[in-house]
Amino acid sequence: MKAIQDLYPDNLAHCYGCGKNNSQGHQLKTYVEGEETVSRFTPDMKYTAIPGSVYGGLIASLLDCHGTASAAAFACIAEKIDLNQVDLPIRCVTANLNINFKALTPQGEELVIRGKLKAIEGRKISVDMTLTAKGVVCATGEILAIRLKE
Amino acid sequence: MKAIQDLYPDNLAHCYGCGKNNSQGHQLKTYVEGEETVSRFTPDMKYTAIPGSVYGGLIASLLDCHGTASAAAFACIAEKIDLNQVDLPIRCVTANLNINFKALTPQGEELVIRGKLKAIEGRKISVDMTLTAKGVVCATGEILAIRLKE
Repeated sequence: MKAIQDLYPDNLAHCYGCGKNNSQGHQLKTYVEGEETVSRFTPDMKYTAIPGSVYGGLIASLLDCHGTASAAAFACIAEKIDLNQVDLPIRCVTANLNINFKALTPQGEELVIRGKLKAIEGRKISVDMTLTAKGVVCATGEILAIRLKE
Repeated sequence: MKAIQDLYPDNLAHCYGCGKNNSQGHQLKTYVEGEETVSRFTPDMKYTAIPGSVYGGLIASLLDCHGTASAAAFACIAEKIDLNQVDLPIRCVTANLNINFKALTPQGEELVIRGKLKAIEGRKISVDMTLTAKGVVCATGEILAIRLKE
């Protein structure tokens, strides 16, 4: 299956964090795996917080893009929309992003971000997230995403 | 007066968002103005969310760095430490960052981030923040910062 972000229509695929049409950005890719969503990303060493630890702003960025992609995917799944169609009909923006930094995130490691659907209420979609490095939870987050009107 | 981040000791000044020793980073600068802290930043156009709007992950980054710098400054002020001394004796890391995205943030504009002290309880310092563009509040945030042990 394609990444969720690669299903965004071209006019909504410029996000610095995850847009396929932003060549200078992170190009985060999020996949549906069973009941969860998963992204994997190994940050460049320039993304330092204090030496040895990954910059918190990058962690926030990854959770934001993982969250909006997950919200769109979960909304599609709830409506039985085929995620393999070329243009994803649902695109979400962030209303609230709440991050708990649990431990310093080590540099030089692959980070794994997982999302689980918490709730869908009309255009509001909530997703719980974890970010781990070497199996250790370094951050948790919750996003409230809003589905854009068509 | 110098920016708060320029008072960080050299071994704690590599933050991608605001460290003077990270030449590839944003180098956000935060200043004390009266009872508030203020940062000003004009994002590069590559930081796109949807076309015309600033990438939310960058907004999160700016609020994170503004927040930890503000927390360190407010803690110093509370302890009557002179902010003009060369090395700042207090450095904070983020425990929680909670952001409300209120409106799309226009690209090509100077963003103004302001912080106000909410509470100091032992090593925990809370700061309320707003991010405005052309006088419009685009995001609000709250940070819970933890003072690093010496």
